[in-house]
Amino acid sequence: MLVIMNPNATEQEIMRVAMFLESKGFEARISHGEVRTVVHAIGNIDVDKRDFELLSGVADVIKVSTDYKLAARVSQGQDTIVEINGIKFGDKYTGLIAGPCAIESYDQLDKTAQELSESNVKILRGGAFKPRTSPYAFQGLGDEGLKILRSVADNHGMAVTSEIMDASQLDLFMKYVDVLQIGARNMQNYNLLKEVGKIHKPVILKRGLAATFEEWLMSAEYIMAGGNGKVILCERGIRTFESYTRNTLDLSSIPVIKKLSHLPIIVDPSHGTGLRDKVEPMSRAAVAAGCDGLIIEVHYNPECALCDGAQSLYPWQYDLLYKQIKQIAPIVGKEIV
Amino acid sequence: MLVIMNPNATEQEIMRVAMFLESKGFEARISHGEVRTVVHAIGNIDVDKRDFELLSGVADVIKVSTDYKLAARVSQGQDTIVEINGIKFGDKYTGLIAGPCAIESYDQLDKTAQELSESNVKILRGGAFKPRTSPYAFQGLGDEGLKILRSVADNHGMAVTSEIMDASQLDLFMKYVDVLQIGARNMQNYNLLKEVGKIHKPVILKRGLAATFEEWLMSAEYIMAGGNGKVILCERGIRTFESYTRNTLDLSSIPVIKKLSHLPIIVDPSHGTGLRDKVEPMSRAAVAAGCDGLIIEVHYNPECALCDGAQSLYPWQYDLLYKQIKQIAPIVGKEIV
Amino acid sequence: MLVIMNPNATEQEIMRVAMFLESKGFEARISHGEVRTVVHAIGNIDVDKRDFELLSGVADVIKVSTDYKLAARVSQGQDTIVEINGIKFGDKYTGLIAGPCAIESYDQLDKTAQELSESNVKILRGGAFKPRTSPYAFQGLGDEGLKILRSVADNHGMAVTSEIMDASQLDLFMKYVDVLQIGARNMQNYNLLKEVGKIHKPVILKRGLAATFEEWLMSAEYIMAGGNGKVILCERGIRTFESYTRNTLDLSSIPVIKKLSHLPIIVDPSHGTGLRDKVEPMSRAAVAAGCDGLIIEVHYNPECALCDGAQSLYPWQYDLLYKQIKQIAPIVGKEIV
Amino acid sequence: MLVIMNPNATEQEIMRVAMFLESKGFEARISHGEVRTVVHAIGNIDVDKRDFELLSGVADVIKVSTDYKLAARVSQGQDTIVEINGIKFGDKYTGLIAGPCAIESYDQLDKTAQELSESNVKILRGGAFKPRTSPYAFQGLGDEGLKILRSVADNHGMAVTSEIMDASQLDLFMKYVDVLQIGARNMQNYNLLKEVGKIHKPVILKRGLAATFEEWLMSAEYIMAGGNGKVILCERGIRTFESYTRNTLDLSSIPVIKKLSHLPIIVDPSHGTGLRDKVEPMSRAAVAAGCDGLIIEVHYNPECALCDGAQSLYPWQYDLLYKQIKQIAPIVGKEIV
Repeated sequence: MLVIMNPNATEQEIMRVAMFLESKGFEARISHGEVRTVVHAIGNIDVDKRDFELLSGVADVIKVSTDYKLAARVSQGQDTIVEINGIKFGDKYTGLIAGPCAIESYDQLDKTAQELSESNVKILRGGAFKPRTSPYAFQGLGDEGLKILRSVADNHGMAVTSEIMDASQLDLFMKYVDVLQIGARNMQNYNLLKEVGKIHKPVILKRGLAATFEEWLMSAEYIMAGGNGKVILCERGIRTFESYTRNTLDLSSIPVIKKLSHLPIIVDPSHGTGLRDKVEPMSRAAVAAGCDGLIIEVHYNPECALCDGAQSLYPWQYDLLYKQIKQIAPIVGKEIV
Repeated sequence: MLVIMNPNATEQEIMRVAMFLESKGFEARISHGEVRTVVHAIGNIDVDKRDFELLSGVADVIKVSTDYKLAARVSQGQDTIVEINGIKFGDKYTGLIAGPCAIESYDQLDKTAQELSESNVKILRGGAFKPRTSPYAFQGLGDEGLKILRSVADNHGMAVTSEIMDASQLDLFMKYVDVLQIGARNMQNYNLLKEVGKIHKPVILKRGLAATFEEWLMSAEYIMAGGNGKVILCERGIRTFESYTRNTLDLSSIPVIKKLSHLPIIVDPSHGTGLRDKVEPMSRAAVAAGCDGLIIEVHYNPECALCDGAQSLYPWQYDLLYKQIKQIAPIVGKEIV
Repeated sequence: MLVIMNPNATEQEIMRVAMFLESKGFEARISHGEVRTVVHAIGNIDVDKRDFELLSGVADVIKVSTDYKLAARVSQGQDTIVEINGIKFGDKYTGLIAGPCAIESYDQLDKTAQELSESNVKILRGGAFKPRTSPYAFQGLGDEGLKILRSVADNHGMAVTSEIMDASQLDLFMKYVDVLQIGARNMQNYNLLKEVGKIHKPVILKRGLAATFEEWLMSAEYIMAGGNGKVILCERGIRTFESYTRNTLDLSSIPVIKKLSHLPIIVDPSHGTGLRDKVEPMSRAAVAAGCDGLIIEVHYNPECALCDGAQSLYPWQYDLLYKQIKQIAPIVGKEIV
Repeated sequence: MLVIMNPNATEQEIMRVAMFLESKGFEARISHGEVRTVVHAIGNIDVDKRDFELLSGVADVIKVSTDYKLAARVSQGQDTIVEINGIKFGDKYTGLIAGPCAIESYDQLDKTAQELSESNVKILRGGAFKPRTSPYAFQGLGDEGLKILRSVADNHGMAVTSEIMDASQLDLFMKYVDVLQIGARNMQNYNLLKEVGKIHKPVILKRGLAATFEEWLMSAEYIMAGGNGKVILCERGIRTFESYTRNTLDLSSIPVIKKLSHLPIIVDPSHGTGLRDKVEPMSRAAVAAGCDGLIIEVHYNPECALCDGAQSLYPWQYDLLYKQIKQIAPIVGKEIV
């Protein structure tokens, strides 16, 4: 930790800072600059930096160490690769996941899966528990939905991913689901993070609407600290002043996360934009920026979808998009199956 | 719902919109303006407005009805007043809650409560389960903390409030806690909202870091729809581009919520600013803006606090503040006990 | 304009709204819904919608017409194409502009231009007047810089673009510069917008740091209303809560602007990210999303740049990037010379 | 400046940083911590910190010195007090400014000024040049407006303030106006800032919609560096994700600016909220938070205002508000005339 003093800080104030640091267990090393003095606190001790910001004569306090360790790039030599049903995410691989927003019926899911299998999709998405802003909106089929998801996927040789909303649903998800999704609203539901840290299935961790990169990686750290290293980060848009698009898809998260962490990062352009005609250009953009995967909403008949039909592609649109990104990937040194 | 057509929309496009509306159960009423045509969809039917935004010729779609009903001001004639241990929140009453961020020990809490009781505090706050960004930070005393909280409060004739983080903790909170707090990170934890909707204790619902007023009221609606009308909204700062303060305390939420809803709104200046020297001016400002209460962090010895000491007041600071806001309240037509 | 009444609005309140509308020159058409009444104000009259929001019984007021007319897609059948020195921006063409952030000397600019000409660059950028946050930072070479820019460009058969900061500089820019840039900080400098509306040179209008799509198009409208239709919009990142990157480059502006307007939209990944290693992935992403051009900072020796060296590419990096995006463009139906 | 190395940075990388620093003129002092090494760059030299962030092995770079010097609290012992027509802003004084958004006619302004003089207003505001988002909206009366403003104010023994939009208007403002306002959109119009730095009239500098505290103080520094120390900072709301209010009035700027600077800070609740019924609570809140002044829009007949009538108070509302804040000020150690 670095404590930066005011230009006019007195010797007494500097000494008080040093003594307070030492009382917390740090070694305090004082360095006088031309204008300001900096006190370098040596020691790997967890303190609240604001306690020092409030001391007289202090201008600013900087934490030198990041709080995430296991998720940090420096913690391991190579990129983490997560493999699901033969599809790889990370390093030079860009994996694809597709399916409807919500599971509505066996028929709806089966028709969609059938179309998607023709576009080489090997991982099917579908929500059984839906986090809805309104208590009066369709909340998903629940347990029944997961059973349908499993059954349809088995039919088509697919793996499945679905959003878990509460730790109490874990047994159910262990039984039916291959990859657990944690939604943006739950990115800091620490009970849930701790629980999925104890299992050994891959977890897709979506970025919270207002989460910084550091907070996002800290949430990944919660899962990894529990022993589960198969974390896939998922950018899905942040909230900004611009309300024309549902969210602002922050594609710069791709190169940033690749610098800070070894974990794979995928993009959800469906929630990230909220409108079908924006999904295609932003999917292509994500691949061109080097993302490790995409998760895209597709419905065999979006106009009749019970949920988020407006952001779901038609199967023929998905197929066209698939052909485009398959061409873009190798230009940026990536490979799509 | 109102569907606004492009200036150059064709008759065919307008008819298509009208027919699609009628297929969903609406009556479609077409009104030609000088530049644009508007289609008024009559009927109280839940649809995703984006399905209409994607139709050819459509410029914009406006939802006429708010999704919150029970929380809306128009749903009842008078302001809701929530009373806890003789302290009232709402209408002309401004209630006060104070205590440390986290319960650290019987001694710490008792000393703090003793000091606060001398400043007339009747509701004690204290966290037993702490949502921490880092998995390596102090996570609270858990069950043991709640027992200490109850015991100390009983000693001083106080009621207590504490943050519930997961629906699985509900039995525990029913036993020891008078007012449940739902934190900013859990504002859209719908499982938790549904569960606290079934009980009859008051609930303090904090505004999410990136929650609009409408989303906040929708989360209140989740609780009210379950049958629990004792919801107290709590402004605690939003995330903006400015990172100097921990959050940006949005005091305009006070007059806005009072216009939109009958529910009481209180302010948490401690989390809202994150620094002790900002807590006093912002507390006074909140009262001057007409808030229905304050929840303030106070520690008998903030420099040794295990959590958020930097934003905790010294008891003598709280006492001074109490005297100031007691003078300000009547100027704005409010009353502090 | 549409005035949406509260569910419990009285007949009297509705009539008051209708009469106030008619006093302003509108025809008021009342439409009763199941829950709410809507008053459709017919007439193309400029009023402040908040005047109606404040009337008793009113829930919301919606402006039906956009304020931009000339910039709106509906105002003309085809995409605007701006051509500069044989390079086209708009419709199926993606144009490229490159050069250093600031003009530092003849030698620096000439060396950079020499390298760029080998990568087929035909439009050279370079700042002579630099908007710097600090009054103590390098402010650019001024007039002298523009002369160097012109002379170097003529040497290499290039056209030039540079940022104009004040209307008083217009004569100078008319003499030396082919394409005027208006920077993000000046997007709402209305005096400047009006002045460049009177000339016939193309104008690159950067998006303000906190400008909505609508405000951005309104600023384009200022220029077009003066008679200059050669406006190129330039996305360069917006300010969000995330401060890791200098700004958040909002690539969804590409499909959004293409829906709302016929004007070409280009992207500035250098200012949009602020760091060299983010410029390449985001440039490729912008092309894959269908942008009409890129403006990229390149310096023959970035480590010695007087300004923004950290976000400038080395010439060899630009060349590599050029080869990548030339491959990506045709996949999305675009053409790079 | 402090260069923080990665935990696994090599000795070679550390030496490269040190040598690069010394090549720029710094003395490099290396301090090894338990986990990371920090290089303290001694010397008051202006460099772009990103140049160091890009070096291999570097995790982060921290600027130790603020770029504003004259505006910084540490630059002088006491708060700056600006006095205009007997009204003081700063230290223990809270000054008041009121008047219409725009000057519409002699009659309109005179009627408003007459009413305001009865509430003890000594400084009249009124816009002659209006920055409007739309080129088709009322742009103000221009020169004629300023003459009316001067004449009406002289009639009532008032001083005047008005917004200057361009450096070319300076002569005009020197003749007619006592206090120059620089609007939010022009906070970083550096040509204008430099010009008003050369005069000796007080300047009200509004905070830009997306300006950090540091950028705001840097803009004040531009004026002060020119020799004009009479700068009054004016908080008028920032842009956030919440669009219910026109802007989010950030009252925490009051205690923050008071910590960082000696300059007076006033609040504009009219633009900060955009709606009349929010102006009163937020004005009271600003005074309770300790602001040094308020600038409030008042119109003798807001319903007929040509501009921003919705956010203008009726004179009787202003009078009521004046009486309230006169009571609140002494509670927080301030004085209103």
